Amino acid sequence: MRTYFDCIPCFVRQVLDSVRLTTDDEDIQEQVMRQALCLACKMDLRQSPPAMAQKIHRIIRELTGEQDPYLQIKNRFNKLALEMYPELKEQVEASADPLETAVRLAIAGNIIDFGVDCVLEESRVEKIITESLTAALDMNALEEFKSATAQSKNILYLGDNAGEIVFDRLLIEQLPCEDITFVVKSGPVINDATMEDAEIVGLTDIVTVIDNGSDAPGTILESCSKEFRRRFSEVDLVIAKGQGNYETLSDTDKDAFFILRAKCPVIARHLGCEVGSMVLVKNEIEVCNEEN
Amino acid sequence: MRTYFDCIPCFVRQVLDSVRLTTDDEDIQEQVMRQALCLACKMDLRQSPPAMAQKIHRIIRELTGEQDPYLQIKNRFNKLALEMYPELKEQVEASADPLETAVRLAIAGNIIDFGVDCVLEESRVEKIITESLTAALDMNALEEFKSATAQSKNILYLGDNAGEIVFDRLLIEQLPCEDITFVVKSGPVINDATMEDAEIVGLTDIVTVIDNGSDAPGTILESCSKEFRRRFSEVDLVIAKGQGNYETLSDTDKDAFFILRAKCPVIARHLGCEVGSMVLVKNEIEVCNEEN
Repeated sequence: MRTYFDCIPCFVRQVLDSVRLTTDDEDIQEQVMRQALCLACKMDLRQSPPAMAQKIHRIIRELTGEQDPYLQIKNRFNKLALEMYPELKEQVEASADPLETAVRLAIAGNIIDFGVDCVLEESRVEKIITESLTAALDMNALEEFKSATAQSKNILYLGDNAGEIVFDRLLIEQLPCEDITFVVKSGPVINDATMEDAEIVGLTDIVTVIDNGSDAPGTILESCSKEFRRRFSEVDLVIAKGQGNYETLSDTDKDAFFILRAKCPVIARHLGCEVGSMVLVKNEIEVCNEEN
Repeated sequence: MRTYFDCIPCFVRQVLDSVRLTTDDEDIQEQVMRQALCLACKMDLRQSPPAMAQKIHRIIRELTGEQDPYLQIKNRFNKLALEMYPELKEQVEASADPLETAVRLAIAGNIIDFGVDCVLEESRVEKIITESLTAALDMNALEEFKSATAQSKNILYLGDNAGEIVFDRLLIEQLPCEDITFVVKSGPVINDATMEDAEIVGLTDIVTVIDNGSDAPGTILESCSKEFRRRFSEVDLVIAKGQGNYETLSDTDKDAFFILRAKCPVIARHLGCEVGSMVLVKNEIEVCNEEN
């Protein structure tokens, strides 16, 4: 997905939220804002929004000297989600369709996204979880998802945010595939999950976890390691979690499912849904028509 | 008032709203966005927000070739307000305190501000008018305002937006001062009122109307004509209407009252009120303490 004009004011707001979270020093805040605006005025709109976000968050880390500004937030939401985990796990297993319930919860967990909203209260997470159990979900896509995950020899599950990955764990535990690899970012960017988060929430105990070699808040293949790209190209099925992975992989020709909560108007428009919708969608692979 | 960091994402959003209103040509939209971002990255934050807006709207007019992008909007709201005028005039005159009612309506009219909100429905204007009649208003400031307008030999009333100036007319008709000069912008910028609007709504029939020599959406004295600056310095009392005039004149040492609706968080914080508040406030003139 390319970057739309509407993404630009949102970038600028994100930079401000993020730099304020990182430092109280107004001189540094101003330097970051100016550099981000300077970047924005030259940005390549054909690239996906996370390409710009990757550059901006590098600037923030560089100018503030703070390598992991969202560390406390990541820990807070890992802890919150882990506290919820036992009850949610019971809820999944007691439900009429555990895989469906787990998909719903994985979507709910995508609310923990500090790129979109720099203020997220625990009570909002709880509210979204409750709503997710009955909110509209594309049941045809769910059937396709069940079938694809059962038929795939191996799956690459691209994680999104810390805290949220506990909800991914609930889904992974229900997937009918033995060979699942979970993917985290190789370095801190916003509240995206890294290897440390995967360890904290116990994902490393149940599946193979690898990092993608990149610090982009999404999966920009050119920014990822050669090793990751090889696994991505060889795997049977990709499950891509969250907005950043949708934005960066919506044009991929891999068999992929996107699982997310549509949290901004640009994504919602691109997906043809309302802001706040629960999204489980199969990648539309364009079939070349030989006559054209 | 200086430009705050929070103004920057808002500028960028304003540019996008404004250029979309002006042209459907995405190439021009992109050029405008890039030039505005480039300007923003070098902006002098000590200047007031309208200084930046003035530059941005010049770029929009230059790159689109459209000299008055908000002309239709201005005409639409002049017409709407003129249709409301007879009933509102009756309401003012039948009220227990006509001057207070007129102040309330003048504040309500400040909702017609396309710098803040590019989508404004007629029904919202009606709702705000109704609310304004009973909403909280600083009654001490009102008493001071009554007294100051009665004691001033002459008043300079700095207008804000088209449509809104009909509400200013209601207030001017109640002011106990014979010598009132109403001020409009010398050229189109956003939906700010120009001489044409003053003529359309009949302000030119009841008071002297002058332009300030500037196309800034506020009153940046250095950007105004020498003639306007002379009148500004000589006048007994200034009534400055709307956010733009507050942002540009909040530090003036003239006797002045600001009349506006606080429509953005930055202004509200600066004024120490909530967003949506009705504001009638006397300029706080700093008295130099000779001992310091």
